[in-house]
Amino acid sequence: MDERALIRRYFSRSAPLAGERSAIIVGIGDDGAVLRPEPGYDLVVAIDTLVEGTHFLRDMPSAAVGHRCLAVNLSDVAAMAAEPRWAVLALAIPEVDEAWLSGFADGLFALADRYNVALVGGDTVRGPLAATVTIHGQARPGQVVQRRGAQPGDGVWVTGSPGDAVAGRLLLMDPDKKTGHDELRQELIRRFLFPEPRVLEGQQLSGLATAMLDVSDGLHDDLGKLLAASNVGAEMDIGCLPLSTALQTLCPRDAIEHALTGGDDYELCFTVPAAAESSLLKAAESWPVSVTRIGTIIAGEGARWSLDGRPYRVPDSLWQHF
Amino acid sequence: MDERALIRRYFSRSAPLAGERSAIIVGIGDDGAVLRPEPGYDLVVAIDTLVEGTHFLRDMPSAAVGHRCLAVNLSDVAAMAAEPRWAVLALAIPEVDEAWLSGFADGLFALADRYNVALVGGDTVRGPLAATVTIHGQARPGQVVQRRGAQPGDGVWVTGSPGDAVAGRLLLMDPDKKTGHDELRQELIRRFLFPEPRVLEGQQLSGLATAMLDVSDGLHDDLGKLLAASNVGAEMDIGCLPLSTALQTLCPRDAIEHALTGGDDYELCFTVPAAAESSLLKAAESWPVSVTRIGTIIAGEGARWSLDGRPYRVPDSLWQHF
Repeated sequence: MDERALIRRYFSRSAPLAGERSAIIVGIGDDGAVLRPEPGYDLVVAIDTLVEGTHFLRDMPSAAVGHRCLAVNLSDVAAMAAEPRWAVLALAIPEVDEAWLSGFADGLFALADRYNVALVGGDTVRGPLAATVTIHGQARPGQVVQRRGAQPGDGVWVTGSPGDAVAGRLLLMDPDKKTGHDELRQELIRRFLFPEPRVLEGQQLSGLATAMLDVSDGLHDDLGKLLAASNVGAEMDIGCLPLSTALQTLCPRDAIEHALTGGDDYELCFTVPAAAESSLLKAAESWPVSVTRIGTIIAGEGARWSLDGRPYRVPDSLWQHF
Repeated sequence: MDERALIRRYFSRSAPLAGERSAIIVGIGDDGAVLRPEPGYDLVVAIDTLVEGTHFLRDMPSAAVGHRCLAVNLSDVAAMAAEPRWAVLALAIPEVDEAWLSGFADGLFALADRYNVALVGGDTVRGPLAATVTIHGQARPGQVVQRRGAQPGDGVWVTGSPGDAVAGRLLLMDPDKKTGHDELRQELIRRFLFPEPRVLEGQQLSGLATAMLDVSDGLHDDLGKLLAASNVGAEMDIGCLPLSTALQTLCPRDAIEHALTGGDDYELCFTVPAAAESSLLKAAESWPVSVTRIGTIIAGEGARWSLDGRPYRVPDSLWQHF
């Protein structure tokens, strides 16, 4: 199968939103896509690569890989409080495995459709299995929330229950295939395989959050990036960590460590001034995910975690790019 | 070295155009870049991946790899007759090789600076060596030239001298390391290692060319894509092929085949109505590269090549993605 046939078969689905809203002047199949941004909006661009062995395993369902390569990018746009619009995909595959490709495309498009994101271009090449997505979002000037901007006194918040994904990954790779609590087990595995980017939540945090990023490398590590960009420190409370029942039940000894250092969460971590807390809680009432205040920004640098008033030393992250 | 340090050291150079023209509201270092497109312009987006072993060899100078991963994308934007503005890079590397990275960044930025393209975001991951660039260009509505649009009677044109790059690749890989005609040899090797995207030429072809693409997989193969998209055929003249002196001197027996089927040229192939030929030739007077008419669009399908009035059978392309 040549590249054109492959793209036509798996990736040339029609855009979920036809007509003017899609703004696709030229879609897949030419040298480039031509898009018509809405007047008055800034363009938000993020790129992420998933490499087999580093970010996913060959024996993971390919739908999960397709889901993930878009999800991590949607999560970046969400963390900027922007609205995702268009994606382009570069896929390197060692050979044409039609079942794998079909599942990959299913996973990718199911998520794209959910958030009205159109795949507008792509490149497929022969090589070690890897997928790169570049996502394009839009935001009105002033809408985006950057990593810098946190101020002393702001609360530190996180969506969902960090740590579930890494627990799911470990359960999935568990050589003993233990059983018991099977429903909770499946819940954690699903949290690893199909992380839900906080697309709508992120946009609603515009005007409320002073700084934000998504948690991909582990809560402690990513919070450190937010603090460094904002040139502040934070006092963090282990006792406030939103540990899921599944995580506490299946990983009673490692739950805190997973929540702090496990990667792949794709939750949002953000700071909110005290005056905006009630607005945040009101907005979050309609969210399908919880928000939890886990600390306070202070002058200084770095995150100081404590448990029952005593300092808590965070172990090194499980998750290292290099 | 962690990812932040790596990006800071090699890829966080200041944008070549500061101030309003650069339109970079948020650059490298946050979850995404925020860009402010010029009002009234469409956005042109293309993505291309280079994989070690498929698109480049580890022992190629890394500056050539850095150059190439941007050049192939600039070439896509040029083939749409659009102006390139911003690039994002995803780089997978097996380990942190500082000398390699430094050369790669030098090659990338030298080309980016030449065309006022800013690197606004990136992702570095551990994995088999591969580089993906997504390029963003801009064009006024109606400015872009697509692959579709060629009409019977239009001339078929090509820039430069296709075939040089594949000849250069073969010379570079020549195990015998033959000598003689060393200057011509170096010229062909340079054409492979540092292909020059036809960025300014492409933009000037807006309004003149009825259809256009860039030649990456070989002239015959790529012309076939243009013809298929335009739903026309072409009568092509081997005798008109612009074979370089270097190619004819060093590959006397394979020159035609290289020009037709060798990949990696990154020249532009386009169609121009007879009425616009004089305008084309006038525009091209200031170009550093030649343009040559090599055929004529006809009703029908596919390219029929002839040499001295006799049909010429094009061998299968050397260059296959799959």
